Amino acid sequence: MSSNGIVKRSEDFSRWYNELVLKADLAEHSDVRGCMIIKPYGYAIWEKIKDQLDVMFKETGHQNAYFPLLIPKSYLSKEAAHVEGFAKECAVVTHYRLKNSEDGSGVVVDPAAKLEEELIIRPTSETIIWNTYKKWIQSYRDLPILVNQWANVVRWEMRTRLFLRTSEFLWQEGHTAHATKLEAIEETEQMLDVYANFVENFMAVPVIKGVKSENERFAGAEETYCIEALMQDGKALQAGTSHFLGQNFAKAFDVTYADKEGKKNHVWATSWGVSTRLMGALIMTHSDDKGLVLPPKLSPIQIVIVPIYKNEDQLNIISDYASKLKKELSELNISVKFDNDDNKKPGWKFAEYEMKGVPLRIAVGPRDMENKTVELARRDNLTKSTVAQEGLPKLLLETLDKIQEELFSKASLFLNENTIQVDSIDQMNQILNTKGGFVEAFWNGDSISEQKIKDLTKATIRCIPLEGSENGNCVLTGEPNSKKVIFARAY
Amino acid sequence: MSSNGIVKRSEDFSRWYNELVLKADLAEHSDVRGCMIIKPYGYAIWEKIKDQLDVMFKETGHQNAYFPLLIPKSYLSKEAAHVEGFAKECAVVTHYRLKNSEDGSGVVVDPAAKLEEELIIRPTSETIIWNTYKKWIQSYRDLPILVNQWANVVRWEMRTRLFLRTSEFLWQEGHTAHATKLEAIEETEQMLDVYANFVENFMAVPVIKGVKSENERFAGAEETYCIEALMQDGKALQAGTSHFLGQNFAKAFDVTYADKEGKKNHVWATSWGVSTRLMGALIMTHSDDKGLVLPPKLSPIQIVIVPIYKNEDQLNIISDYASKLKKELSELNISVKFDNDDNKKPGWKFAEYEMKGVPLRIAVGPRDMENKTVELARRDNLTKSTVAQEGLPKLLLETLDKIQEELFSKASLFLNENTIQVDSIDQMNQILNTKGGFVEAFWNGDSISEQKIKDLTKATIRCIPLEGSENGNCVLTGEPNSKKVIFARAY
Repeated sequence: MSSNGIVKRSEDFSRWYNELVLKADLAEHSDVRGCMIIKPYGYAIWEKIKDQLDVMFKETGHQNAYFPLLIPKSYLSKEAAHVEGFAKECAVVTHYRLKNSEDGSGVVVDPAAKLEEELIIRPTSETIIWNTYKKWIQSYRDLPILVNQWANVVRWEMRTRLFLRTSEFLWQEGHTAHATKLEAIEETEQMLDVYANFVENFMAVPVIKGVKSENERFAGAEETYCIEALMQDGKALQAGTSHFLGQNFAKAFDVTYADKEGKKNHVWATSWGVSTRLMGALIMTHSDDKGLVLPPKLSPIQIVIVPIYKNEDQLNIISDYASKLKKELSELNISVKFDNDDNKKPGWKFAEYEMKGVPLRIAVGPRDMENKTVELARRDNLTKSTVAQEGLPKLLLETLDKIQEELFSKASLFLNENTIQVDSIDQMNQILNTKGGFVEAFWNGDSISEQKIKDLTKATIRCIPLEGSENGNCVLTGEPNSKKVIFARAY
Repeated sequence: MSSNGIVKRSEDFSRWYNELVLKADLAEHSDVRGCMIIKPYGYAIWEKIKDQLDVMFKETGHQNAYFPLLIPKSYLSKEAAHVEGFAKECAVVTHYRLKNSEDGSGVVVDPAAKLEEELIIRPTSETIIWNTYKKWIQSYRDLPILVNQWANVVRWEMRTRLFLRTSEFLWQEGHTAHATKLEAIEETEQMLDVYANFVENFMAVPVIKGVKSENERFAGAEETYCIEALMQDGKALQAGTSHFLGQNFAKAFDVTYADKEGKKNHVWATSWGVSTRLMGALIMTHSDDKGLVLPPKLSPIQIVIVPIYKNEDQLNIISDYASKLKKELSELNISVKFDNDDNKKPGWKFAEYEMKGVPLRIAVGPRDMENKTVELARRDNLTKSTVAQEGLPKLLLETLDKIQEELFSKASLFLNENTIQVDSIDQMNQILNTKGGFVEAFWNGDSISEQKIKDLTKATIRCIPLEGSENGNCVLTGEPNSKKVIFARAY
């Protein structure tokens, strides 16, 4: 264990992750099975993710709306594949009242308040939304509908991990309706690009864009597009999905529109979502044994100023300077915290902000004030330098940009170094059992082969990449003209 | 019925409200009992409410966090008054899986997946949050905790009305923990002021600040502060509440802190919330028989530009001007829509934006372009004027400010004119049975008298006003030295 109370990544990556999430005050388990509490610091990062995505959704013409939390049980059954995918792990509301127990020890469910039809807490909202779109859509003039919802959903998970897999999680789900197949596919692809753009340029997490194999598709989709990221332990993490739903939900809920000639057609659909799972990707891509490492664009505090002083006079001089600097930085839209808490020693503060992943730390003491310098420490590469106070705001702005870029470059290098092409199952296992990573191999497109490879390697097809499609011999059967796909063990 | 398809307020206020909410595309009922769908236009207004409140919460030192949707049944029982208030109307999760029915007709609840302890969908989060605070608080150094949560809650309502009373609604709930009683009371009062400031200065809805009688207090509170607004039909609407919870939840969940001397004390608590109910207050305060009237500060579209043209050449000239104007207004942070939809006639558009409450409408035709003028129409007072294009952005900015102020003045005048002091139950009934309003009367402070007055008048004590406290003879019993309170029939 390091001095900061968390295990090293090299010793136990999974424990490192859990301890880091707790120590950095991001989230914790609640007493309610599989449900987490997102603490203020963790939520502040999620808010930054949410706010930026919301801007990008609106720039691409979407509006937010809100649909009910509870879905009648019968809705789920209307789309055959959908119910198969979601009925197994849902929270069911059966009653609407409690009453005092007869022995006075507490409250019990009132058997008289049983619902005629059970309600399901939404695991995803396609069914209730398409039931609504039926009322909203009559003519081609009502299309497209470009709606997004920020919401909580519940999927009953037996094995849960903070942010990565929880019974309740927060997410956004876009649900769009279109007159033509082409338009719906363009929307699906556009939203995949929005996700990739956000994850790469704000989270500094490189991704591979692709489509899922049939086995891995969303329940009810014709095609599931996805972005896949690679964590430091060599495991893949699906960071976002965008589904082309064809006319499946329109047919299940009988949603048609009259075209210009008055002819009725079923509507084409997409849905797309990202969730608090992104927090897991963010943490596992950049962080180190000292704690969290945050990209500047998503860091609630971008710069912390820590005063080093022996008496109040010294603190006063440093405080004056810090106030001035803070004001200048605020004008550049940089968020700064001046930590003048007298109960904590500078060393304690240094460790604390390292744990919390604050990108830049400025330490200022009496000697610095004399020399008109500060000590600047970068969280990402842990380098320190003494720099002049003159022109500091500009340097800090540039350094934040540089950190953002370098985090992405470093993660991209890691992804490239850990993407390896193989020709055999043995080779695949050798890689997966050692350093892991993305394994490129050819696959004959057959679901049975896919399952066999999974049984042999514990790896799933993460995606069929959109770029760089090639053909070759299937890694399992040797069949020629098989397509290149990416395998990995995954979160 | 007016030509716009909604009944007049004077004919049936309640129906007018429902029809307006539907026609203005704000919300609609879902198939799920008591749950509403908030449509994009309604949600855009709610987002403005939410964003502004969030800024105000952060300015007063609060941070957002997120706690689980589901609460173990036993938590509710821990605070005696709380369970009495909330057990009667809650959604109960009893199972966590569905399975295919044996006859293949759909899915049924899997009896094998019964929860050991039922979970309640949060009707409010005091219990789960105080169960968590127990872990967060050890010493006075951990205090205060100033946390807010934006969330959905469910209270099973038998009679529901869009925005005003729905089984699921959206809200924020602040939950703070303090070392001293005084600090907790100051927080309670501060948040009441934040609410009053927001509702008056952004929603343009005047309110009376006060405290609730014991009967009307939040279940588990020592004191409930509230803001009360008066709707156009003379009924009161509680727009926000801020509760001083004393040490009730700290005692129920055994939350103590060690003070500087190491002595253990129970923690002091507050909670405060506003909900999508505010949308109802907004609608019923300002709107008229033509539709919604929105205060500029909360209007998703502040100005709409409608071109009047006979051919494409005319439209092109107007479009050029509109683009330029739109750009200038965007720089002033004014949100503008240029509606050049060729499928709709100007008259249709005028009615549509009146229905949607857009504060200012600009109509521009070829004659206007020649004269370098536009026609400007105010939604609030329905006045029209021809104004010069020269200097228009500044005029528009000033006019928006003026509308915001005048809406508040008009509503304040209404509130004052409809606040009437009475000396007898007969007088009270006479007023309540005719034009309604706030009725000021003296009350002896006794719960039995309060109930009797309610039985006789159908009015409840809305609040004991913080300002202008006077004493007099009780309106029911004639007892002297009774305190002045406000009665009304209420939503």
